Amino acid sequence: MDETLPVFAHRLADMAGGIVRGYFRRPCAAEHKSDASPVTQADREAEAAMRAHIGEAFPAHGIIGEEYGEERADAEYVWVLDPIDGTRSFMAGKPLFGTLIALLHRGAPVLGIIDQPMTGERWVGIKGRPSTFNGGEIRTRACAALGDAVLATTSPYLFSPEKKLHFEFLRGRVAGDIYGGDCYAYGLLASGHLDLIVESGLKAHDVMALIPVIEGAGGVITAWDGGPVTHEGPIDLIAAGDARVHTLALCR
Amino acid sequence: MDETLPVFAHRLADMAGGIVRGYFRRPCAAEHKSDASPVTQADREAEAAMRAHIGEAFPAHGIIGEEYGEERADAEYVWVLDPIDGTRSFMAGKPLFGTLIALLHRGAPVLGIIDQPMTGERWVGIKGRPSTFNGGEIRTRACAALGDAVLATTSPYLFSPEKKLHFEFLRGRVAGDIYGGDCYAYGLLASGHLDLIVESGLKAHDVMALIPVIEGAGGVITAWDGGPVTHEGPIDLIAAGDARVHTLALCR
Repeated sequence: MDETLPVFAHRLADMAGGIVRGYFRRPCAAEHKSDASPVTQADREAEAAMRAHIGEAFPAHGIIGEEYGEERADAEYVWVLDPIDGTRSFMAGKPLFGTLIALLHRGAPVLGIIDQPMTGERWVGIKGRPSTFNGGEIRTRACAALGDAVLATTSPYLFSPEKKLHFEFLRGRVAGDIYGGDCYAYGLLASGHLDLIVESGLKAHDVMALIPVIEGAGGVITAWDGGPVTHEGPIDLIAAGDARVHTLALCR
Repeated sequence: MDETLPVFAHRLADMAGGIVRGYFRRPCAAEHKSDASPVTQADREAEAAMRAHIGEAFPAHGIIGEEYGEERADAEYVWVLDPIDGTRSFMAGKPLFGTLIALLHRGAPVLGIIDQPMTGERWVGIKGRPSTFNGGEIRTRACAALGDAVLATTSPYLFSPEKKLHFEFLRGRVAGDIYGGDCYAYGLLASGHLDLIVESGLKAHDVMALIPVIEGAGGVITAWDGGPVTHEGPIDLIAAGDARVHTLALCR
């Protein structure tokens, strides 16, 4: 990949972060979408700004965004945007929501950014390169057994009753569990602070940016059955820093 | 209260924060206590430093600390210390754990600090004064009905099966729910970003600092039955920004 695309992706993250920071802990119109997830003026304005910028710089590229849907989704290059991953946290004044930006090439994610507008932290993954955190190379940590793993998930209420059984199975076997992660947890896993993330019901815009970050740091991220993460939701995701604990956490 | 005690409490928070920041996302010896909660070298070092500082400045004051227990707990003034509230988050590299410092006078909390060493945020409550966030006065927000409330709890797995039923009852009625708060959620509630926090199984060091912060911002914080929060654990806690939603959330 030439440097034009990563440089441009960083600029998109800067732009979205500037907008989102302006609304943090301030009155901000919000409503619930058809899937009951909340959306705010900040989500919409940040996504619209990124889309306009992509349209000017790369008019042939496609876009898939959480708030404004798809344009040219069959293009060679497609940007996948989630202006605020963790809108519930954002609305409650918790600073660990993030902006997710992915670039797909022929359907496969080749670049991913997990940006944290409030804490100034940015994880970047580019296919074939080591992932970085604020510019420094990162590696996941070793974890061979479920009993040694720290497990994260955003909310245990995101699982269907059947899937909850698998989550509970894992939760009963790990060394520790934490909640409320949203995309921040994937960054922490890439940086070697967490071992396992198990989530369910995600969409392409929630996950595409995570894949290059996790894989470029030495981790594994797949569907619950070990298969590749597809664009079609709902996506059930298992990410692990170590392939050994990933295998032990699969549901098949 | 003369200014000596608040000034001293700020200095304790600065001191603990300096120590804790030095260990964040770095290798740090950790073990599990008899109640299965984790403790790290950072918890111990920060509490020891605060205790030594209190002992020098106010040798007649008592101390109750998470890691090193009680000294002179029947003194007129007693400091209640939790060097890292949210040790699981701290160990996973999540920056929203906090340092809790309370001062009891004849058993009642008259000063509380919720300090966030990583984000540079500090909530302060002093009996009879408006609570502050980084020096500015704060107020809780109005919320008259459960259906309008955003509910937070650290982990839904902290409830006993019976208490979980009450939590699930509330969760089914509120407007939204977020997880993974630790003490940060109480600061957000005091600042008017959240409406309701329901937790269970807490100890004095987890809760005493929260009381002046919440009450001085106009909120209500009690046991699940509406009674006062006592020093004896385990403590089941309901905090609300508005007395109306607090009443609706009680379990009696």
